[in-house]
Amino acid sequence: MDDKPIWEQIGSSFIHHYYQLFDTDRTQLGAIYIDASCLTWEGQQFQGKAAIVEKLTSLPFQKIRHSITSQDHQPTPDSCILTMVVGQLKADDDQVLGFHQTFLLKNLQGAWVCTNEVFRLSLHN
Amino acid sequence: MDDKPIWEQIGSSFIHHYYQLFDTDRTQLGAIYIDASCLTWEGQQFQGKAAIVEKLTSLPFQKIRHSITSQDHQPTPDSCILTMVVGQLKADDDQVLGFHQTFLLKNLQGAWVCTNEVFRLSLHN
Repeated sequence: MDDKPIWEQIGSSFIHHYYQLFDTDRTQLGAIYIDASCLTWEGQQFQGKAAIVEKLTSLPFQKIRHSITSQDHQPTPDSCILTMVVGQLKADDDQVLGFHQTFLLKNLQGAWVCTNEVFRLSLHN
Repeated sequence: MDDKPIWEQIGSSFIHHYYQLFDTDRTQLGAIYIDASCLTWEGQQFQGKAAIVEKLTSLPFQKIRHSITSQDHQPTPDSCILTMVVGQLKADDDQVLGFHQTFLLKNLQGAWVCTNEVFRLSLHN
């Protein structure tokens, strides 16, 4: 773990934390956003901590489990971290679906927050 | 088109330009990168215009055709544009494969360049 570049350590810690909260208690996800944060969820746009958490907590399933296939992290010229995740999810008793999700993480006053997030299911029809 | 937010106009123009060059003459893609640009291609990391163009032009296929399923664009706090693309591609006579690709675009001296790019095929096994 310690041999990895710092942005990979931060990115993978964030991803672990995000999906653990998502799969156990989505109401706690607010802590990772700020009021400038943007979320695009299957093409729907939301801005700000409150609107994002309301969207995430109102998604129509009781149980969800994410499994990560790949995660890629990069440093950006503005000292942010760009993260792209490919994975599969199973919501309630639905079939397993592929998804992809992108995050932009920024350090604000010592804490890493998510300023940008995009989510899409892997559906091509 | 003009009713869309400016970041969507810029993002979708970039995407159109990128895949048009990619599918016709990948050697011309160098113009969109700078020496600080990062590319992660199926987990392999490249930095700088020269290394990125060498990777893209050495990909082992003669013909490729991308078809875009969805594209999402967001403004970031540092005045960049985050773009996530989901699509399908057909290389030579191979089967059609799903892919996803993330770009971070930054305006430098009046031109939009790609500072960060991540590509993955949609394979979960």
